[in-house]
Amino acid sequence: SMDPVSGSEPRICQPLIFLRKTTMTKTCGFIVVLLQTWVLGFNAQAALPPGDPLPSWNDGLTKGSIVAFVARVTKEGSPDFVPPAERIATFDNDGTLWVEHPIYTQLAFALDRVKDLAPQHPEWKDQQPYKAVLNNDPKALAAMGEKGLLELVMASHAGMSTAEFEAIVKDWLAKARDPRFNRPYTDLTYQPMVELLAYLRANGFKTYIVSGGGIEFMRPMTEAIYGVPPEQVIGSSIATEYQIKDGKPELMRLPKIDFIDDKTGKPVGINKFIGRRPIAAFGNSSGDQQMLEWTGAGSGARLMALVFHDDAEREYAYGPASGLPDTKFGTFPQSLMEEANKKGWIVISMKNDWARVF
Amino acid sequence: SMDPVSGSEPRICQPLIFLRKTTMTKTCGFIVVLLQTWVLGFNAQAALPPGDPLPSWNDGLTKGSIVAFVARVTKEGSPDFVPPAERIATFDNDGTLWVEHPIYTQLAFALDRVKDLAPQHPEWKDQQPYKAVLNNDPKALAAMGEKGLLELVMASHAGMSTAEFEAIVKDWLAKARDPRFNRPYTDLTYQPMVELLAYLRANGFKTYIVSGGGIEFMRPMTEAIYGVPPEQVIGSSIATEYQIKDGKPELMRLPKIDFIDDKTGKPVGINKFIGRRPIAAFGNSSGDQQMLEWTGAGSGARLMALVFHDDAEREYAYGPASGLPDTKFGTFPQSLMEEANKKGWIVISMKNDWARVF
Repeated sequence: SMDPVSGSEPRICQPLIFLRKTTMTKTCGFIVVLLQTWVLGFNAQAALPPGDPLPSWNDGLTKGSIVAFVARVTKEGSPDFVPPAERIATFDNDGTLWVEHPIYTQLAFALDRVKDLAPQHPEWKDQQPYKAVLNNDPKALAAMGEKGLLELVMASHAGMSTAEFEAIVKDWLAKARDPRFNRPYTDLTYQPMVELLAYLRANGFKTYIVSGGGIEFMRPMTEAIYGVPPEQVIGSSIATEYQIKDGKPELMRLPKIDFIDDKTGKPVGINKFIGRRPIAAFGNSSGDQQMLEWTGAGSGARLMALVFHDDAEREYAYGPASGLPDTKFGTFPQSLMEEANKKGWIVISMKNDWARVF
Repeated sequence: SMDPVSGSEPRICQPLIFLRKTTMTKTCGFIVVLLQTWVLGFNAQAALPPGDPLPSWNDGLTKGSIVAFVARVTKEGSPDFVPPAERIATFDNDGTLWVEHPIYTQLAFALDRVKDLAPQHPEWKDQQPYKAVLNNDPKALAAMGEKGLLELVMASHAGMSTAEFEAIVKDWLAKARDPRFNRPYTDLTYQPMVELLAYLRANGFKTYIVSGGGIEFMRPMTEAIYGVPPEQVIGSSIATEYQIKDGKPELMRLPKIDFIDDKTGKPVGINKFIGRRPIAAFGNSSGDQQMLEWTGAGSGARLMALVFHDDAEREYAYGPASGLPDTKFGTFPQSLMEEANKKGWIVISMKNDWARVF
């Protein structure tokens, strides 16, 4: 692939290359954007146009593969051309777009919420799984397994209207801080992935979040932090019920699972909500394997990638990179790495491929 | 409201009025569209701009109310202004966008499909509800009620992959004909509603279908007949399961209800799929009542409307217009008409408000 500064670009672009290194006026910026379109449209082999849309990615095979894929599917007349309406890209959230370690942000929310509600539930101090939460005893909590977690989710996520829940989530997000980075959770999005979302949208893609996390937990923030509107967020859900309360309709959140958008649930959710097969999918765990399989099984050009957490210094190292047994944080088992290698899925090394993380 | 031909429009539009009555070149048409935007933007009280976007609607209170609503919510600086991202309009399908009488098109599909499958099921000829279908005995079928219908739906809609089902639906739509009009069902969309969909989209709205009908029955055709892409179609669904078959992932359709998108299910479906409350909603039956209530309960300008089938000559007359008891085709009971009047929902008279139906 070609270096945009090397002189191998179409001649019309040459006079504009210096603009990258100088202060641009708005008009000049607009001309550059027009020319980017022209370059991508007529020269799919060009690596990155002036005004790199992915500045937080290091140059290399990963970044080059992403850019080459976008060029192939957007070039009219190319055998790999995909009409804009079919340019669907799906992204897992936890560990793919923002930090998921050491616990999912939504679990941090559930634990805080149980503590907030405890005064109204004096019985909780002697009753599991609440007791473990109130005593800050993660070992006891873990010992209760999925059943304990499910009970916490229902106690913290159900029993209010959808409007009330949205207000609770927004309020918590404004106040809560990640303990290691001491920043709001909404600050801990991966800058390279935020750039990737914007880059795909600028190339006519519709970007979706497809997460095991709660759909109504994510929707209050995804537009602001990712540019993804609520109708492009797919997630797990609990049942809601339409009720008229004091003459006003409400949707009440019931303590009952509606849909789990994880593993085999991801292709099911994608088909249900979108009704089209993605041409690009990004994940970071075995919960995303079926979404990537489903995406890859379509015809034409496809891009499947996994974010690999191998950067203990700037973020975390877990899965095969951690040296810990798979069970420790078992969302990226060795078997997934083997699957990725076998299927040609890109493995994004946080350490090597990202110039910055946040 | 003002008559565009009366001379009470902004002066700049005057010379263009004659264009409505003459053949327009493409360039003139483009200028008219630009001016429409200008007129709507700066003079929200103007009724219809030159180049009527709703030519199949008769002038009158109904059309005027729709146009006035669109002008109010799109006029920047107006207290009723709604940002484009929040301009969500939801439409029921059967009886609102296309013919539903005397039976739903999807039921016609199910009956044909049972007949197609009968040779592989010799036991059906002595077994209800199949026997009633194979003997063309609608009375016997009706006597089996909802349970019988559900069994037919499962026999005809499940047991294949989503890709196979899509192909079956497309094939049937290409061949099947409505018995009264002797035309493909996809021709029997209401032209005024198709114009309304396009008019709303031209004004920055995102148009959704929210139907009790099957989501995967509708998706193969909605883009072509309504300009509504699959990801903006919400409907009833059966469960699907992710399976690997001969090394290839598939979504298998299971004989199990996943979601019923009707009555109280419509606000639930809207919240689940869109995550925003519509500002406009269109229906035609008691199955749409809760969708209209939910839409109307939001703050700011709202538009709720029901298509009323009072045109036995060009289409059908049923509900309060039929003179038949409510039970005959009970989707628009007298109580719904009273509700509409009480809440100020627009009742669209097919007979009086539509210049043409198809």
